[in-house]
Amino acid sequence: MKPTMALEIERKFLVKNSDYKRLAEAVFYQQGYLSNNEKSVVRIRIAGDKGFVTIKEQSVGLSRQEFEYEIPRNDARTLLDQLCEQPTIRKKRYKIPFNSLIWGVDEIDDNNEGLIIAEVELISEDQSFEKPPWVGEEVTGDARYYNVNLIKNPFNKW
Amino acid sequence: MKPTMALEIERKFLVKNSDYKRLAEAVFYQQGYLSNNEKSVVRIRIAGDKGFVTIKEQSVGLSRQEFEYEIPRNDARTLLDQLCEQPTIRKKRYKIPFNSLIWGVDEIDDNNEGLIIAEVELISEDQSFEKPPWVGEEVTGDARYYNVNLIKNPFNKW
Repeated sequence: MKPTMALEIERKFLVKNSDYKRLAEAVFYQQGYLSNNEKSVVRIRIAGDKGFVTIKEQSVGLSRQEFEYEIPRNDARTLLDQLCEQPTIRKKRYKIPFNSLIWGVDEIDDNNEGLIIAEVELISEDQSFEKPPWVGEEVTGDARYYNVNLIKNPFNKW
Repeated sequence: MKPTMALEIERKFLVKNSDYKRLAEAVFYQQGYLSNNEKSVVRIRIAGDKGFVTIKEQSVGLSRQEFEYEIPRNDARTLLDQLCEQPTIRKKRYKIPFNSLIWGVDEIDDNNEGLIIAEVELISEDQSFEKPPWVGEEVTGDARYYNVNLIKNPFNKW
């Protein structure tokens, strides 16, 4: 098997309006965390009809190592229900191409209803890119917006 | 993909002598833990030329759910070196068939040198089985022998 490690460089933004909705179909996501410690985060995710386990290095600056493996969706379902920290996060994700990058927009449900986050993955930390017109304020450095933190401190308590 | 969840029912023993050595070739194992909390353990393992990520339910009695996925060996190497709790555990494993069951014998290295554990996986908690003549005292319930605990409290400190 080929190595599947990738360097993740992600920038996060709020949105200005709902124009993104007409640019892509939403896919249902559910994700939860098996662990979140000083060195790593282990995430289980269902994305549409697929399941994944993802191991991420704890953030150091903008970029971090990420290892993602597809797993059977039924396994992901059991892991989310029984072994992940509760509650898990459910959201609708839109994937929108813009100027050769793919933007992901998450409409987060349940205790984070009303929170909408746009994110883009880059190749290098200093890569320049253009924001789509519906993208607003950057929140990359704000830990409140990390999915792993939205479980303990959801948007409806801010 | 088919679900890969299995119920793990494992019993552990000390060995009486080194007769097991002539019954199989040893394979090099290295394993470490990304996390170990109330609900689950996430283990990274190199076994010979393969890599694995394994998610185990925390023990409740003899049996627990286990989800194991093969991953690229190079990924496992990076995860062991950079994201797992240190030190990791290195051992030689012998796999020995006896009366239609496979016994694993681990010779653990480094701070656990001298510790040799034989284990067998069963289908049900009340399954009867015969012990090979070189297998000694049972230590199934003794948490000191869990690999995850041998990191913090190694055999050379007992």
